[in-house]
Amino acid sequence: MRERSRRRRRGGAEGAEVETAAPRLPQPPRRAVRNPYRPIEILADDAVERIHDASLTILEEIGMEVLSGEARAIMKAAGADVRDGTERVRFDRSLILEHVAKAPERVTLHARNPDHHLELGGNALAFCMVASTPNCSDLEGGRRRGNFTDYQDFLRLSQSLNICHLNGGYPVEPIDLPPSTRHLDALQALATLTDKPFHAYSLGRERIRDGIEIARIARGIDRETLEREPSLFTIINTNSPLKLDIPMSLGIIEMARAGQIVVITPFTLSGAMAPVTLAGALAQQNAEGLAGVAFAQMVKPGAPCLYGGFTSNVDMKSGAPAFGTPEYTRAAQIGGQLARRYRLPYRSSNVNASNAPDAQACYESEMALWGAVMGGCNMMMHALGWIEGGLCASFEKVILDAEMLQMMAEYLQPIEVNDETLGLDAIRDVGPGGHFFGTAHTLARYGTAFYAPLVSDWRNFESWREAGALDATQRAHALYKRLLAEYEAPAMDDAAREELDAFVARRKQEGGAPAD
Amino acid sequence: MRERSRRRRRGGAEGAEVETAAPRLPQPPRRAVRNPYRPIEILADDAVERIHDASLTILEEIGMEVLSGEARAIMKAAGADVRDGTERVRFDRSLILEHVAKAPERVTLHARNPDHHLELGGNALAFCMVASTPNCSDLEGGRRRGNFTDYQDFLRLSQSLNICHLNGGYPVEPIDLPPSTRHLDALQALATLTDKPFHAYSLGRERIRDGIEIARIARGIDRETLEREPSLFTIINTNSPLKLDIPMSLGIIEMARAGQIVVITPFTLSGAMAPVTLAGALAQQNAEGLAGVAFAQMVKPGAPCLYGGFTSNVDMKSGAPAFGTPEYTRAAQIGGQLARRYRLPYRSSNVNASNAPDAQACYESEMALWGAVMGGCNMMMHALGWIEGGLCASFEKVILDAEMLQMMAEYLQPIEVNDETLGLDAIRDVGPGGHFFGTAHTLARYGTAFYAPLVSDWRNFESWREAGALDATQRAHALYKRLLAEYEAPAMDDAAREELDAFVARRKQEGGAPAD
Repeated sequence: MRERSRRRRRGGAEGAEVETAAPRLPQPPRRAVRNPYRPIEILADDAVERIHDASLTILEEIGMEVLSGEARAIMKAAGADVRDGTERVRFDRSLILEHVAKAPERVTLHARNPDHHLELGGNALAFCMVASTPNCSDLEGGRRRGNFTDYQDFLRLSQSLNICHLNGGYPVEPIDLPPSTRHLDALQALATLTDKPFHAYSLGRERIRDGIEIARIARGIDRETLEREPSLFTIINTNSPLKLDIPMSLGIIEMARAGQIVVITPFTLSGAMAPVTLAGALAQQNAEGLAGVAFAQMVKPGAPCLYGGFTSNVDMKSGAPAFGTPEYTRAAQIGGQLARRYRLPYRSSNVNASNAPDAQACYESEMALWGAVMGGCNMMMHALGWIEGGLCASFEKVILDAEMLQMMAEYLQPIEVNDETLGLDAIRDVGPGGHFFGTAHTLARYGTAFYAPLVSDWRNFESWREAGALDATQRAHALYKRLLAEYEAPAMDDAAREELDAFVARRKQEGGAPAD
Repeated sequence: MRERSRRRRRGGAEGAEVETAAPRLPQPPRRAVRNPYRPIEILADDAVERIHDASLTILEEIGMEVLSGEARAIMKAAGADVRDGTERVRFDRSLILEHVAKAPERVTLHARNPDHHLELGGNALAFCMVASTPNCSDLEGGRRRGNFTDYQDFLRLSQSLNICHLNGGYPVEPIDLPPSTRHLDALQALATLTDKPFHAYSLGRERIRDGIEIARIARGIDRETLEREPSLFTIINTNSPLKLDIPMSLGIIEMARAGQIVVITPFTLSGAMAPVTLAGALAQQNAEGLAGVAFAQMVKPGAPCLYGGFTSNVDMKSGAPAFGTPEYTRAAQIGGQLARRYRLPYRSSNVNASNAPDAQACYESEMALWGAVMGGCNMMMHALGWIEGGLCASFEKVILDAEMLQMMAEYLQPIEVNDETLGLDAIRDVGPGGHFFGTAHTLARYGTAFYAPLVSDWRNFESWREAGALDATQRAHALYKRLLAEYEAPAMDDAAREELDAFVARRKQEGGAPAD
């Protein structure tokens, strides 16, 4: 609360707490986003069943390569076909379905600020800051390697933007921090600069355990409460095709045992790590996803899991991954059909392959957004700031995405149709050829009638040119700078902060985690 | 065919027709676009009925102001309540519904090239070049007043881009042509520089009759065939609220009598010319739209009509119109629900309010596109090139829109799910940890597996930077220039061309049409 107090009371005489600060950047209030519309269903039910069936055949006949002996032992104990001396694990279709059915249909992800608890499932929709990029950029400083200063600035934006509901990893990799203790500084920043839910990487047992402990300390709860109240999530990427590596296996084991949320997301790039046909890529995505969810249930029945869809395609000329393509949009919507078939919450993403926060970045993003939202997505990863197919986090794109997400959230608001809103009296009063500007019906509503934009400029051309003719990306630059200047650190309980500091200091002294 | 022959055979020795021209800009082949998905239905059926009912009450109790005595006489003869000495016309709900039911559910708009005939209705979807802007711009020449040179270049782009199905008016107003004969030059250019369907403005009886005659001559058909085969369309904008002016009335009369297509599109800007509530604005849109469609049927039962939705909102701070907003998207989808309720083909638009062909222009456009496409739109006006809320046609935006539309058309392609596309054999052959690049399953399909972009750049950052770090708008500039350089005029029958030249010359000699 210190920063807030200082800002709000600056300039006031002692004892006379005068509000003198400039008005803050207007934005819609924080609210839970719900999608009241029926998802777009691209595939007929029988086609969904064929993909479902093919994926079970893949798991039964081909199986997964599971590198962790500990994981294989758990799978074997649950009834999977694990032959000694090999890493290949095959699963009966009934074994998979029996376990997948144990995963809960919805789950609440808890934040240290209860206002930011998130429901995941049903028609709830949460937007996540960009994650896991090696580079970041803005118009002023250009493109640069990830670092802790920029990292913290992205966290501040995630906190300040009401449309951002959580963090999904490191917005950019702070490579200037030593690898063995990086996760401690990074998680500490997530737990202090924001009071929204966050993620820890499944990069070995120590790191994920540190993440779980930091989430517990930040919330000021004991271990049993933590197990009942999931307060951390991790993304599990299978190594497509059909491979589960040791860190990811350990991530599932540790997180499921602790009752925390596991998001299983195969990265099935059609034409490279998955068949060139979308149906085949989706069958493989579904096989890997179901194997991961079933494994989490083998570790702990009822472990909260999300079904993640991340099927896109490569550019067949260059092999480069493409995002926000028509194929991606369709795969995102079919992914939702599959997730709903298993009654699992659905994770999708806001992606594009543009090298700049420009027109391409936005139209590819919109294709991804409509794929996700109308696919019935519950958690949208990379919702703010992703460009370059995930190789860069753009500060300007954070703002452009915030606008696109705010518009989408407003689009999802139901329209009221009743005598008041039909306004026949107003239409009668105005009559043919009149105008509605000054009417009582308008005056009573105009302040909140319509969505007010963040970065869109609706002035006429002449006024816009006089104001410098800045395009949307340039305006986004100024807005992200303003948001950082206005950032207020969220309040934190002193005891929690001390415990967190002590934990991080101790773990650093112990050397952190083994570097990769 | 002259231009094509010259280009293709340049450089060949006489008698040896060698192909030496550079490859042309690759684009997906011309094809009819169909939307196989169920439209998004934002409103429950009972809410749609309430809007329907309110709009009939408006027509019954408030009525429309109809400025044309000729139109009022037709309405009166059909049974409308027209009181002598006033321009107000009231319509019984049963009168409206009885006439609206006579309009056909689908109609074919004929082009002089039969490959470009367009079905309007059902799940067919056609994309229209920008229309009716007073200004145009490109990165090189900046923003300028409309002129005949730029006008013709937009027509050439409309002809060259396979994703552009028709022209919906003048892409930009050629104000350097004299007002009384401008329509003759403009329509002649439409009929010769393109062989796709086109539009004529309802700006008085002479102009619309000239448009009908030019459409007939270009197709080389007689008047009776023309009446059976609609070959021209006109947009009718009511003067919202609830007013129909003389030129628009005459447009409906002339076009309906000639069996040509009338697109009734109230411009109901919520908060200005319509109630500040979306339900009220839509009730008013529906009232004005139904009145127009019913009037066309009074002129000639069975006259082909489209239901046009163009409800958006103003920025309540400045009064400036906003487009591609969340309100716009919802209105577009509800407009589709209303059109389907009356079994009428639906017209929507691709709109935005940006002053530049930038990120804002694209994300607002995408909101409009998804509103239209998933609203069940059949004819999308302004699909290519609109910026500034219709005050400017942008050459770069034509290309950016072509990309967005091509992506949407590809998104609407059904996905095949069968043994071949599920590719279990390929997944089995590749096995865990392998890759699909060189497999037979991939090699057999990679050439056509995925959408190939027009302007999107999927190279990695380093290659992109080396190539000049051009953003999508800058790349679009180069592409529109290339398309113009590669333009080929469509072949035209000599007799038709001579008749057209003679008609235009005679009408010019007669002085054209009265200037406004």
